[in-house]
Amino acid sequence: MAVMVGEALSRPGGRTAAVRSAVLTATEDALIYRGFAGIDLPEVAEAAGVGKTTVYRRWGSPQALVADLLTDMATQSVSASDTGDLRTDLHANAALVVRTLRHRRQGPLFSALIAASTHDDGTKHALATFYDRRVDEWSTCVTSAINRGDIPRDTDCGAVIRHLSAPLYYQFLTTTCPLADRDVERTVNSTMASVAAEVFSSGPR
Amino acid sequence: MAVMVGEALSRPGGRTAAVRSAVLTATEDALIYRGFAGIDLPEVAEAAGVGKTTVYRRWGSPQALVADLLTDMATQSVSASDTGDLRTDLHANAALVVRTLRHRRQGPLFSALIAASTHDDGTKHALATFYDRRVDEWSTCVTSAINRGDIPRDTDCGAVIRHLSAPLYYQFLTTTCPLADRDVERTVNSTMASVAAEVFSSGPR
Repeated sequence: MAVMVGEALSRPGGRTAAVRSAVLTATEDALIYRGFAGIDLPEVAEAAGVGKTTVYRRWGSPQALVADLLTDMATQSVSASDTGDLRTDLHANAALVVRTLRHRRQGPLFSALIAASTHDDGTKHALATFYDRRVDEWSTCVTSAINRGDIPRDTDCGAVIRHLSAPLYYQFLTTTCPLADRDVERTVNSTMASVAAEVFSSGPR
Repeated sequence: MAVMVGEALSRPGGRTAAVRSAVLTATEDALIYRGFAGIDLPEVAEAAGVGKTTVYRRWGSPQALVADLLTDMATQSVSASDTGDLRTDLHANAALVVRTLRHRRQGPLFSALIAASTHDDGTKHALATFYDRRVDEWSTCVTSAINRGDIPRDTDCGAVIRHLSAPLYYQFLTTTCPLADRDVERTVNSTMASVAAEVFSSGPR
């Protein structure tokens, strides 16, 4: 559900990749410090040390820069936990979400992306696609639990992963209370109790 | 957790109250159509049909306008459900959140307020205070359930109410999937299962 990286994203590759990396890092900075409305293509080009025409030709708009950043972020995540124990896997996922949202660059970046998506449909779709991909990746541990016979066969795997993240994002976005280990425990416990109670089962209703 | 009103908020009272009402409605419009960065005091004054100096003297900043709007919204909510059955009360609350977030004015207003709070600490605090008050109001049904002996005595009432809203806001903010009745059922079922499993109990850990 989240990327976790050291400082700015580290993006390897050749000349073209280096230009993209510098431009996306400058886009991140603009989002973090000024928000979506503060993304200015000439400023991004200058901060990235590349020509304005390159940024205009290759991206052309703040929307396109943010969509490309989200595409890039989707490839940068740590691999999903799949240890053979659902509680352990869910704990690893929830702890990663908390580390990301508490991170001094990633936290403001995610809140800026969510804020941007409320006023720009293109960003809303790009962000939703980013989270869909994350949910799919993290769902493998739920599928494994089904295959082991640990949880009901008709469990909606994506719904489990979204349920796990929801209280963490909600607290992050609507309170001034910092996320803590206790919040990880609570959402893991709630998710496990809900799976056991077949809340995410798609059977006859 | 949410106000639900017909069109713009209906704000009764005398001359001073009428000015405030018109200014706050204009502030809502600015937030909905242009976002926090688009709140311009002279434009708010003009849209409200009041003098610029009134708006500058009485509010003075976009932050102050939004903080006053949130204070006003906190007094406009429908009363909390407290029927004697916790599931019924939680269902009423979750259904109200969904109606509010799907409402053509209230939905964009809440997303604009959340977006604004990611870039302005004053708005973040005002929004958190708004939600704290809502949570307190809605928590009475959980307190009643404790008093009836229906749920564990050490249940954290506010945590139950926040858990109920979290998946609805998370879906609203990070997906393009519209909220539906099914989402109400699911968060009620998850919350009831979590209460029964003592996820929100504050006992020894």
